[in-house]
Amino acid sequence: MHIGVIGGGQLGQMLGLAGVAMGHRFTFLDPAMEPPAASVGRHLRAEFDDAEALERLAVECDLVTLEFENVPQASAERIAARNCLMPNPQALAVAQDRVEEKQFFEGLGLSVAPWVQVDSVRDIVQGVAHLGGASILKTRRFGYDGKGQVRLADPAHAAHEGGPGNPGEAASAWEALAGAPAVLEKLQHFEREVSIVAVRGRNGEARVYPLVTNEHRHGILWQTTAHTGDPLQADAERAARLVMEKLDYVGVLAIEFFVVDGRLVINEMAPRVHNSGHWSLGGARTSQFENHIRAVIGWPLGETDPIGEVAMLNLVGTLPDPAAVLAVPGTQWHDYGKTPRPGRKLGHVTVTAPDRTALESRLDRLRAVIRPPGA
Amino acid sequence: MHIGVIGGGQLGQMLGLAGVAMGHRFTFLDPAMEPPAASVGRHLRAEFDDAEALERLAVECDLVTLEFENVPQASAERIAARNCLMPNPQALAVAQDRVEEKQFFEGLGLSVAPWVQVDSVRDIVQGVAHLGGASILKTRRFGYDGKGQVRLADPAHAAHEGGPGNPGEAASAWEALAGAPAVLEKLQHFEREVSIVAVRGRNGEARVYPLVTNEHRHGILWQTTAHTGDPLQADAERAARLVMEKLDYVGVLAIEFFVVDGRLVINEMAPRVHNSGHWSLGGARTSQFENHIRAVIGWPLGETDPIGEVAMLNLVGTLPDPAAVLAVPGTQWHDYGKTPRPGRKLGHVTVTAPDRTALESRLDRLRAVIRPPGA
Repeated sequence: MHIGVIGGGQLGQMLGLAGVAMGHRFTFLDPAMEPPAASVGRHLRAEFDDAEALERLAVECDLVTLEFENVPQASAERIAARNCLMPNPQALAVAQDRVEEKQFFEGLGLSVAPWVQVDSVRDIVQGVAHLGGASILKTRRFGYDGKGQVRLADPAHAAHEGGPGNPGEAASAWEALAGAPAVLEKLQHFEREVSIVAVRGRNGEARVYPLVTNEHRHGILWQTTAHTGDPLQADAERAARLVMEKLDYVGVLAIEFFVVDGRLVINEMAPRVHNSGHWSLGGARTSQFENHIRAVIGWPLGETDPIGEVAMLNLVGTLPDPAAVLAVPGTQWHDYGKTPRPGRKLGHVTVTAPDRTALESRLDRLRAVIRPPGA
Repeated sequence: MHIGVIGGGQLGQMLGLAGVAMGHRFTFLDPAMEPPAASVGRHLRAEFDDAEALERLAVECDLVTLEFENVPQASAERIAARNCLMPNPQALAVAQDRVEEKQFFEGLGLSVAPWVQVDSVRDIVQGVAHLGGASILKTRRFGYDGKGQVRLADPAHAAHEGGPGNPGEAASAWEALAGAPAVLEKLQHFEREVSIVAVRGRNGEARVYPLVTNEHRHGILWQTTAHTGDPLQADAERAARLVMEKLDYVGVLAIEFFVVDGRLVINEMAPRVHNSGHWSLGGARTSQFENHIRAVIGWPLGETDPIGEVAMLNLVGTLPDPAAVLAVPGTQWHDYGKTPRPGRKLGHVTVTAPDRTALESRLDRLRAVIRPPGA
């Protein structure tokens, strides 16, 4: 099959590596000069709203999928009108807009953090008062890795904390987002952040990976740990199946949650393969990338169990010495071939171990040679 | 790193897939029009003895390795004079010539089947008499997948079996090989065929995969089964380490053996990643392809243990329905993207299972949908 992919970053590259091994070939639509995925397929260099390029992608490929969810809705629909786009434009529309997404989750009876819609400074001031406690302002669209987010202090304590006072703080937050439509969410005091990666085939068959625990640094994913038997697995799995069913979703989907008082509160979803699923490459019987390809092709899905205790560390900003990393047993080195830049995801390391104690000791060794994001 | 590879077939493709994931890029030298590896790197289209192309490969790449051992010796030396070639030309010279190879093994005290060198019909006639029993005539060079081989009946029974009589049979065998220099080997009545895949790094560190059992059909590998704990593991491992040490070998090497009266008799070696090691891709903690790249780069090697009970079936001549194959649990589909042709290796399927019984039942299901070579 000839698979068209919107986006040609590292996610596209890893999809391509999985797909080429299965005999498929790829065209990646991406405006960058030499995106990572160009090493495993044809690169169609164009903007994500370039009508002619979208037309070519739709016409020349057997099917189209994506690794980047912020595809303009018009582009998604243009492709879907010509060919099969997976996930479908409706699923994308929901995932692209925090307001639609939250309303969608609430409609399914799934918990999200208390939130209000924001279109003005006044909305922020009122929202902060309404939500009570500290909150976080996020652009409705196009946010990633903590970008487009501003934290607002608890108004009750703002004065003690040296905050600028509520209306001033609201105005500067609004300015920081350049006045883009936003949502204000009540900041969650979570025990941990977790996420679930799931996949659904063209025939509706669904499989779910183990619920994983994520740790962020400076808004960027630093570490994912995959243990089987998380007590919240069933709840997360139910949410993922419900969401995929409702959206008639095909492919891999990720949902990020906060664990608050032992219960899942949805943060957001990503309609694509996800950084918190990278551990599955080398750490699960079938990687999220292979399963995404199997799903969109219409092939039976592969097993999602881990092959042991598994964790993943992101390589952000600069790459450590690969020899020092690979000297730790059970490690796999992934380098996306990108130019180093502060805050940029350049690669990741997967580590497997026979038990938790061994995993922790291997992680300790790795954290001694890999710098966390922002460090 | 920019890695040059002599040969661009499926082995090159799988090396490229492993290497691109680790951040390397590739140039493949191959005379074919669109070889499988072209999907994961630059394709330098030239004959294996094209001086200018070899020069380019040596000069433009950081190091050079190979996926095809029948590189002319002059080509190997031309590259080695300019850059690092791994494995080295001396290792290649030994592996390319059955006479040198057998003498090399004998020199290390390793068992090979009784054999004689053949340069004429008369050598065959005398050799058959000398070896006693049925024998097999093989070209000294450039044989693969049972090509360049002729079986000769036991002279004591030739009349009963309707054989053409010894001198006539010898002449026609010699003709079938077009008079190429050959060796005559005493046919081994083996209990099974096994092989070992091993890898050695630039610093001399070596790792060995489990000894696997191979079944051939029409001279082509059909099935490989990898169980840990084979009683002959230690002997095979010792042979592999000895051979690699003696050749100052860097990269993956495979040695094929016959098991005769419970003991290992070497058939031949391959100075490259090997079909009987394909199970390691998805079936071992580190695939032979990843370990070959790690070895030639000078990075620490990865663990070679299997992740369960593992087997591999080759897809030869025609491809079965991927959906029927992948409907069997624990399977992975590999399609090299080659044009189907009788006797051609087009892909392979790896299957893993938690225990031997489950593996056997999955293999039964697979063998119901995959045709063996020549069927």
